[in-house]
Amino acid sequence: MSDPHPKICIIGAGCSGFTMAKRLKDHGLTYDQFEASDDIGGNWYYKNPNGMSACYQSLHIDTSKYRLAFEDYPVPDDWPDFPHHAQLLQYFHDYVDHFGLREAITFNTRVDKAEQLEDKSWRVTLSTGEARDYDALIVANGHHWDPNTPDYPGHFDGYQTHSHAYSDPFEPHDYRAETVMVVGGGNSAMDIASELSQKPLAAKLFISMRRGVWVLGKYANGQPADKAVLPSWMPAKFGRKLAQRVIKKQLGRMEDYGLPKPDHEPLEGHPSVSGEFLTRVGCGDILPKGAIERLDGDGVIFTDGSREQVDAIIWATGYRISFPFLTDPALQPKDNAYPLYKRMVKPGYENLFFLGLAQPLPTLVNLAEQQSKLVAAALTGTYAFPEAEEMERVIVEDEKIHLSHFYASKRHTIQVDFGTYCRDLVKEIGRGAGQSGS
Amino acid sequence: MSDPHPKICIIGAGCSGFTMAKRLKDHGLTYDQFEASDDIGGNWYYKNPNGMSACYQSLHIDTSKYRLAFEDYPVPDDWPDFPHHAQLLQYFHDYVDHFGLREAITFNTRVDKAEQLEDKSWRVTLSTGEARDYDALIVANGHHWDPNTPDYPGHFDGYQTHSHAYSDPFEPHDYRAETVMVVGGGNSAMDIASELSQKPLAAKLFISMRRGVWVLGKYANGQPADKAVLPSWMPAKFGRKLAQRVIKKQLGRMEDYGLPKPDHEPLEGHPSVSGEFLTRVGCGDILPKGAIERLDGDGVIFTDGSREQVDAIIWATGYRISFPFLTDPALQPKDNAYPLYKRMVKPGYENLFFLGLAQPLPTLVNLAEQQSKLVAAALTGTYAFPEAEEMERVIVEDEKIHLSHFYASKRHTIQVDFGTYCRDLVKEIGRGAGQSGS
Repeated sequence: MSDPHPKICIIGAGCSGFTMAKRLKDHGLTYDQFEASDDIGGNWYYKNPNGMSACYQSLHIDTSKYRLAFEDYPVPDDWPDFPHHAQLLQYFHDYVDHFGLREAITFNTRVDKAEQLEDKSWRVTLSTGEARDYDALIVANGHHWDPNTPDYPGHFDGYQTHSHAYSDPFEPHDYRAETVMVVGGGNSAMDIASELSQKPLAAKLFISMRRGVWVLGKYANGQPADKAVLPSWMPAKFGRKLAQRVIKKQLGRMEDYGLPKPDHEPLEGHPSVSGEFLTRVGCGDILPKGAIERLDGDGVIFTDGSREQVDAIIWATGYRISFPFLTDPALQPKDNAYPLYKRMVKPGYENLFFLGLAQPLPTLVNLAEQQSKLVAAALTGTYAFPEAEEMERVIVEDEKIHLSHFYASKRHTIQVDFGTYCRDLVKEIGRGAGQSGS
Repeated sequence: MSDPHPKICIIGAGCSGFTMAKRLKDHGLTYDQFEASDDIGGNWYYKNPNGMSACYQSLHIDTSKYRLAFEDYPVPDDWPDFPHHAQLLQYFHDYVDHFGLREAITFNTRVDKAEQLEDKSWRVTLSTGEARDYDALIVANGHHWDPNTPDYPGHFDGYQTHSHAYSDPFEPHDYRAETVMVVGGGNSAMDIASELSQKPLAAKLFISMRRGVWVLGKYANGQPADKAVLPSWMPAKFGRKLAQRVIKKQLGRMEDYGLPKPDHEPLEGHPSVSGEFLTRVGCGDILPKGAIERLDGDGVIFTDGSREQVDAIIWATGYRISFPFLTDPALQPKDNAYPLYKRMVKPGYENLFFLGLAQPLPTLVNLAEQQSKLVAAALTGTYAFPEAEEMERVIVEDEKIHLSHFYASKRHTIQVDFGTYCRDLVKEIGRGAGQSGS
């Protein structure tokens, strides 16, 4: 990409899209940025009119402010350790305004189609009907908007919804005095179960989990748990063993709370974080159940043969990676897997960048800000990708580093360790600079 | 008290009253028992029509089931670690029915007056107008029913209530979308602040605390925190130092959460226990404020000069020890203090027993069951009290053991360590048996 003025399109104006935009602006590159909504914020824009936010009213990010800050824009001094979604969104607004990124965004405009032309350029068709061609396409459309709802036999007559549509205990559905079942073991499941299980809200609350998970607190030893980073020189494997021992000592056995026993060690799954969940289970507010066998009219039958009457089901069963606008079948995810070179590029499509398409530990908020460094280097010609074959080899190698210590699951296809990833990114930009000839 | 059939009156049918009753029955003693309410349970009878329960709908006891069980009646196998008030009440009902204690209770009958006659017997006047005379009077009327509300200058125009009248976020007052201030640092304050502070409930929640407190979790190292008892041979002082170190390591510094720094060590105050509070402060849901200077119409002015607009105030400011039926001025509490021999008897009134008039660690639920052993021994003549002077000396000595490590406060006048107290009680019953001549 030696064109000094490539035409660039960014899809989305969430935290991945606007940090990418800022990086391009820093490099003097111009771009078009399209956002389906009337404002920035994406997933963190509660009740986002684009229908794509997974926020619920009580949501606080489970990453502390010490770990989510953008590199070049500090978080407010008066923030609590774990900000509320409204605070995070305000921070995003402040960032966008501070760096003057707002005017380049075209709001209320969805990308309906993005197809690669023969010359490798991208033709983008907007919801306005207009089509524009670009030298490079940056996809920052998020991956927490296409709800995954499992398909069980039988039918359920009560109210049911995916956690994506859950706002609060009263709207759009009033759960008070109902028997509610939350399905899932991830962060939304923990939060929503903890919230609704309180005695003045649901009459009874079941959580159905197919497998046991480790539920980590937001704090450990009086500090935000994610603040205690292991030194970077410590071998990842050893550090993990050490952290596992500490976590198990602090949490004890999940079975002791009445939860299913995890079939893996702590940190071998994307952590479910909650400051409340274990206490609510231990207080009997949350009643744990195993996997669902089938739906049964006004109730649910579980694989252990038990049946519970249920008024409402909330499927906190995660999201599908989804690109409805990409016409090329080769670019569609298979089984929620999406192998990419450095989590950004599919070999053979070196002018198509996926930003924030990862589940990083601790957080996704500031990942694209880092990823954008490689994208900008590539777009300004100071970085060159390796050959496709080499890229394929490295993808497998990297996945071993980032995924091999997680149990195999559709939940763990795009997992990355933030620190490891960023250190590697710097190295990779250096490597690519050596090969770019610039 | 050598009469083999003393006439005995028990005031109250909460857990102190009915465990006392059971002990008398075991000894073949008959008694009258009066309860103002239509049923047993006292403080643990939610929405008790006698108006004396401090329960709110979300209340779970902060003592684990391992520590609150009655000696002679096990808790249900299927209980969670920290049962809900409704479960505790059911346990009380089961106990009362199992031991056949219900028929001896006169319900819907308040004791309006209890006066000592010249012959030392007690004349009890009931709300029915009837008067009865007794050889011994057992007072088990509870001490969480007479709300203490501090008197600040100025006036407040919004809604205000004592935590005693708080039921849930919606009734008798709907706190949703309001700016609420909870005042206090005890368990009710922790619970109610944590509950209402949630984003779908109050719009904003302040907690005003005159002094910092240590907020202990319900769990420590994956076990109910109160399950880890120190061995009884360990000197109390050393054990306390050890526990303080562990607690401080687990909780960190209260200031780091944005809370006032306690002016005492952990366990030097009656513990405030909450599985949620610290996380909610760390998430910014709960906004800590210092002491109140004065009320100011639609707001409150604090001693640091700051002012906050407030819609509703909940005074979680504790209770007064109160015996409205005792006519003898010498029996009225002074400054919430109520020195008693072995926490039960005022010297000179050896046929008047106060049961459950203590703030024991971990819990009050099963204390009277233990205390009743001494009462029964005294009433059956197998225990003799020392001389009044000796009793006064021991009261001072015992208070040193139970109170000296707490900071001086009206909150800590009737504090006892359950284990220490019970071991001493056994010794005392032995001592009194040696002197009873029986």
